[in-house]
Amino acid sequence: MSFERLLASERALVEAALARLLPDEATWPQRLHRAMRHAVLGGGKRVRPILVRLAHRAAGGDPDLVTDAACGLELIHTYSLVHDDLPAMDDDVLRRGRPTVHVAFDEATAILVGDALLAEGLLLLASRPPGEQLAVRRARAAALVAAAVSSRGMVGGQAEDIDSAVDDESAEDGARRLERIHRHKTGCLLQAAVEVGAVLAGAGPELEARFTAFGSELGLAFQIADDILDATASAGELGKSPGKDHAAGKLTYVTLYGLEGARRRLAELEARLAAAAQAIEGEGGELAALAAFVCRRRS
Amino acid sequence: MSFERLLASERALVEAALARLLPDEATWPQRLHRAMRHAVLGGGKRVRPILVRLAHRAAGGDPDLVTDAACGLELIHTYSLVHDDLPAMDDDVLRRGRPTVHVAFDEATAILVGDALLAEGLLLLASRPPGEQLAVRRARAAALVAAAVSSRGMVGGQAEDIDSAVDDESAEDGARRLERIHRHKTGCLLQAAVEVGAVLAGAGPELEARFTAFGSELGLAFQIADDILDATASAGELGKSPGKDHAAGKLTYVTLYGLEGARRRLAELEARLAAAAQAIEGEGGELAALAAFVCRRRS
Repeated sequence: MSFERLLASERALVEAALARLLPDEATWPQRLHRAMRHAVLGGGKRVRPILVRLAHRAAGGDPDLVTDAACGLELIHTYSLVHDDLPAMDDDVLRRGRPTVHVAFDEATAILVGDALLAEGLLLLASRPPGEQLAVRRARAAALVAAAVSSRGMVGGQAEDIDSAVDDESAEDGARRLERIHRHKTGCLLQAAVEVGAVLAGAGPELEARFTAFGSELGLAFQIADDILDATASAGELGKSPGKDHAAGKLTYVTLYGLEGARRRLAELEARLAAAAQAIEGEGGELAALAAFVCRRRS
Repeated sequence: MSFERLLASERALVEAALARLLPDEATWPQRLHRAMRHAVLGGGKRVRPILVRLAHRAAGGDPDLVTDAACGLELIHTYSLVHDDLPAMDDDVLRRGRPTVHVAFDEATAILVGDALLAEGLLLLASRPPGEQLAVRRARAAALVAAAVSSRGMVGGQAEDIDSAVDDESAEDGARRLERIHRHKTGCLLQAAVEVGAVLAGAGPELEARFTAFGSELGLAFQIADDILDATASAGELGKSPGKDHAAGKLTYVTLYGLEGARRRLAELEARLAAAAQAIEGEGGELAALAAFVCRRRS
């Protein structure tokens, strides 16, 4: 099976699992559950749950045992999108090609949808896969993801990012700050996805460290690719409003290094990622293919 | 030691633990951590962490081993207050006698403070107390609290509550709806606090069921007391703006049953709570005293 076909089949599998795991629209409170399904089931690349599954397989586990936990990470990722899109944050009206939750429903509902998706995601991580003999791995995975989205992780990156439009600083400070924002805002959860795959397979510390190294570089690559797309793609390609970060005067890899500079940094990262993947799975494995996909994506 | 003195000493202990567990103001991102500490360390009754500790002792455990996990519940409770106070929700400017987070900082920061406190609270529950031999209890406690604040729990209650000002319905439907809102919005997390205390002590199913019964009634009693206070107390006594629910035409026990009717229901619940506490700890124990405190509180 080519990697494109593997990716398509992974996506379909994750999509079906998400539809099964989310409370249905007939369950109280109906409107909130409708809004949660609107937020989650509207497409998306599903990179994080696929990462959990592929990392789990690379660490010697059966990916079908961790699909529910993997979906927990997608719910948490979606919570962060719903809150980032709020009027008080990025004030965005389009996401994954559809109206954002506060536009399709209302602002209060969008806040609650995000809150509920974060709780639901961590609930899945703390409870799946079931069984007392897996509790050590499960508690570790839940703690690892909670830390990754904490104030020292994803939420901290977002907090610094919303300040970044107003500050005046040297180019050197700006570069350091940009990398810190990106490593936290996007990198922490992507890295956690890779680590969760390994932890749930019972990887020892030495193997786990190799997954951590791969996940850390992948997170940064993902965000640089995002900045390049924000500066170059159309709304139709992106499924969200492009050029906003640029227009808002926000720090991005493109505003800081120029388009060519950002592309060069991404190419360097892709090479480092290939080496990090090889240290885990040998030559030409799934993680290397996924890293190449992340670096070369068009949407 | 009288129960009042026990309560004061419990509160001081929880307060010190919260100050220790929250990232300090010198830790990146500094402004977010300042806002988190503003939200959490501004007073409060600390009913939930005290409940965890007292329930843990009543189930045969050492309360000092579960202080950190107990504080996790207070962080989660505080997250719900910070988000409820947002302009798009209850739009409140005063909480625990101080400006709400979106007033003292800004709206985006208040959203992120809530998000970070929820993650931090579940991180504490998934990771404390440490030790592989406690992982089964820890994973269970984290899952139980995550479910309690999910869309089928606390967040669901809040979602229905923000709709309740606009609906027109029969008194009977209103009463059913009010109890459902209260049981979810306030009751689920209070019940979870009691259950976490028992679960972390390794209580078996039969004993745990008695804690659940006590916690369930306690949550409802707490909310009826809250409605009575909202209708009768001053801002100085409450540390928040009183009468708002009433003025907004929201369903409360007072608007539905009148002040005397609400007080009668609360007295009935207090008697049921005393019996439920006795089934756990015998005559005159700490849980019974805590229940009486919740039913008779003046702020």
